[in-house]
Amino acid sequence: MTGTTLDDYTDRYAQRVRGMTASEIRALFAVTSRPEVVSLAGGAPFVSALPLDAVGEMLGQLGGPLHGATTLQYSGGQGDLALRERICEVMSLSGIDASNGASPDDVVVTVGGQQALDLISRVFLDPGDVVLAEGPSYVGALGVFRAAQADVVHVPMDDDGMIPAALAEALATVARAGKRAKFLYTVPAYHNPGGVTLSESRRDEILAIAEQSGLLVVEDDPYGLLGFDGEPLPALRSRRRDGVLYVGTFSKTFAPGLRVGWVLAPHAVREKLVIASEAQILCPSMFAQTAIATYFTTMPWREQIKTFREVYRERRDALLSALTDMMPAGTRWTRPEGGFYVWLTLPEGLHSKEMLPRAIAARVAYVPGTGFYADGSGGSHLRLSYCFPPPERIHEGVRRLAAVIGEEMKMRAVFGTAAPGTSPGVSWTPAGTFNSAASNHPAPGLE
Amino acid sequence: MTGTTLDDYTDRYAQRVRGMTASEIRALFAVTSRPEVVSLAGGAPFVSALPLDAVGEMLGQLGGPLHGATTLQYSGGQGDLALRERICEVMSLSGIDASNGASPDDVVVTVGGQQALDLISRVFLDPGDVVLAEGPSYVGALGVFRAAQADVVHVPMDDDGMIPAALAEALATVARAGKRAKFLYTVPAYHNPGGVTLSESRRDEILAIAEQSGLLVVEDDPYGLLGFDGEPLPALRSRRRDGVLYVGTFSKTFAPGLRVGWVLAPHAVREKLVIASEAQILCPSMFAQTAIATYFTTMPWREQIKTFREVYRERRDALLSALTDMMPAGTRWTRPEGGFYVWLTLPEGLHSKEMLPRAIAARVAYVPGTGFYADGSGGSHLRLSYCFPPPERIHEGVRRLAAVIGEEMKMRAVFGTAAPGTSPGVSWTPAGTFNSAASNHPAPGLE
Repeated sequence: MTGTTLDDYTDRYAQRVRGMTASEIRALFAVTSRPEVVSLAGGAPFVSALPLDAVGEMLGQLGGPLHGATTLQYSGGQGDLALRERICEVMSLSGIDASNGASPDDVVVTVGGQQALDLISRVFLDPGDVVLAEGPSYVGALGVFRAAQADVVHVPMDDDGMIPAALAEALATVARAGKRAKFLYTVPAYHNPGGVTLSESRRDEILAIAEQSGLLVVEDDPYGLLGFDGEPLPALRSRRRDGVLYVGTFSKTFAPGLRVGWVLAPHAVREKLVIASEAQILCPSMFAQTAIATYFTTMPWREQIKTFREVYRERRDALLSALTDMMPAGTRWTRPEGGFYVWLTLPEGLHSKEMLPRAIAARVAYVPGTGFYADGSGGSHLRLSYCFPPPERIHEGVRRLAAVIGEEMKMRAVFGTAAPGTSPGVSWTPAGTFNSAASNHPAPGLE
Repeated sequence: MTGTTLDDYTDRYAQRVRGMTASEIRALFAVTSRPEVVSLAGGAPFVSALPLDAVGEMLGQLGGPLHGATTLQYSGGQGDLALRERICEVMSLSGIDASNGASPDDVVVTVGGQQALDLISRVFLDPGDVVLAEGPSYVGALGVFRAAQADVVHVPMDDDGMIPAALAEALATVARAGKRAKFLYTVPAYHNPGGVTLSESRRDEILAIAEQSGLLVVEDDPYGLLGFDGEPLPALRSRRRDGVLYVGTFSKTFAPGLRVGWVLAPHAVREKLVIASEAQILCPSMFAQTAIATYFTTMPWREQIKTFREVYRERRDALLSALTDMMPAGTRWTRPEGGFYVWLTLPEGLHSKEMLPRAIAARVAYVPGTGFYADGSGGSHLRLSYCFPPPERIHEGVRRLAAVIGEEMKMRAVFGTAAPGTSPGVSWTPAGTFNSAASNHPAPGLE
């Protein structure tokens, strides 16, 4: 063997990355940051709504002579205690507190919610294991499960969130295949990308099914405090002390650029998560941790969350009214009561991924629904985000998108298909579910 | 199955974490942060030597109204281009530059060097794969390889670093076992914990062996710019365009509290690393990246590195002269020309891990050698760090340690063993190597 073989690493890669390639829509998204494109694709929070004067001053203090020797140093793998105490205070707004066993000692600070999902996967998932997740589901979570070589079985949703009967059916399907789901991954509040919220009554139903079948629940709650119409529903974790791992993040209540999230886990699991995190990153940034602990101690963070809610509510209203005014007949969408996203279903026969290049040519961007299903289905849907662009830009984006959809429908009328290469879309089932992946694909492989 | 089974997660864990427990010395280290203990254990850089006034002002600016909307936002998975350009400038000091194919396009920004090692492992290692690494080796890298369920084969070192003939022998041993090493992990400059540096002539020998056998090299270089006696030796990567992945960090040239490192990889590998990193953390902190890019653009960072060198040289001198003055006969140690660590070999029959509780009782801490071998050998050695305590504290720490070692020797003379439960130490072989793990343990399992 000679050194020249080193130019080709193909035969050295681990199994988990052999099929790993950059997403085909990645190249398209490179252009969405151009100013002429209205991007309804990204999930970037509107951080300009923060009091940046005060935030800057705080960050300067924390890095200066008084605190720098501590904030710029290594910290422990579990995360700083002062921050873990603030995290417990934030979680108490969602009903998670000492009364149901929450304690700073069981919090692990992570590099955003993403690392929390990755650590959980490393602690629980072997290749070939099954994970249940809503269909559609957060694309970043699907990426984690793919990297863990797990099989995702989607559980359909409707306007009230995950359908309990569908969860029971998915569990039965997995059991019939001789497998057992390692956990259920769910975003119950203001779902990404679904834009729907698990209703009060369903929360108890889902937890009862999980308890009955010994199913661990991973509750991912980035948007829980960003509800527009009143107080947030108590988190799943607040209703059940054991069997629920709760994942949070400061990316939406403060800012994503510091990359701080967390997981609250039962004690035995927490220990494993810390060891796994130390092997992965040694420790989270002490500067970022101190910055967030200080912000959530000394600054009016509750009022700031209200400000964020108002910003996003105005944008959600702008998006919904533009959709109502301009979308062609046959287009449907969800009506979020919080969070960042609307899930849109195209008129029959249109395909969101195939339409994307034409949308970008018309200077509007969205995320095709296919990214939110482990098996690449979901082509009849797309995700629109209203978190970042101001209302007038949202209106203009919807105007452009409506025109693109209208054109696609015309082409379909002429050629009998939306455009060359378009496959038939999957509609909502009569029951109003987004998909029926759970019954069609008991344990789909990850492509 | 009922919900009560959820209190016990044992049967749900992934294979990789089933044997994962917190290190037994972790509890002991909890006390080393007490002011009365002289800790020669930790690897914390002396960040107080930074110009914290100016650093604080810079951080305040970057988080304020002018830049906050960018620095507090998400960024790309590969890392910010401005920082990747600065990284190339820093690497050029180690001879890595455009002449040997280094480019910002092939740099991936990571959460410290640790995440770089973890990403490399995720891209290359399947369970049961073999990794070659110096014996002793960086404990954090061993943790990564353990989490990847890889088998580590140690390659002995002497005062000139890794022994080329031992590398060749290790490769042959692995080949005879019907396996192939996925890569060689090495810290050629100012080794952690060995305190030795791979000599100029051996650098070419090691690379020639690697090239001949198609062995990928992972060069971890946290300390390369912290040499005390002249210019750093050109990195392995500077001598070979392909077949070497180079891992760097800002933890020692600036500060660890921002958690920023990187890996420079051949293009095809770089793509895999980015996808793996996105699944793990979505993106590195934009605030931390901008802070470091700004520091390395606008502030006198080369002079600051000289300041760090002088601080650490003075402390190394203090440690070496205290060891010479006070250590009992039969104790040996390395003489580092840079970096943070001295590797000490105890008088025959003493065991560093068993002695640790008595050392801590005498208010001095070190890291037992056992942590630096995948098979838990190395009990006759220990690591002393001189990076953080001032010279007079180092002197006092060595005084206490010398007394503890002296006591152990006395007990050994009385009882025929150093202390109850002490196993015989492993001495240097006549050839002066630290260990002979490669020939004794062809592919030790990871306990």
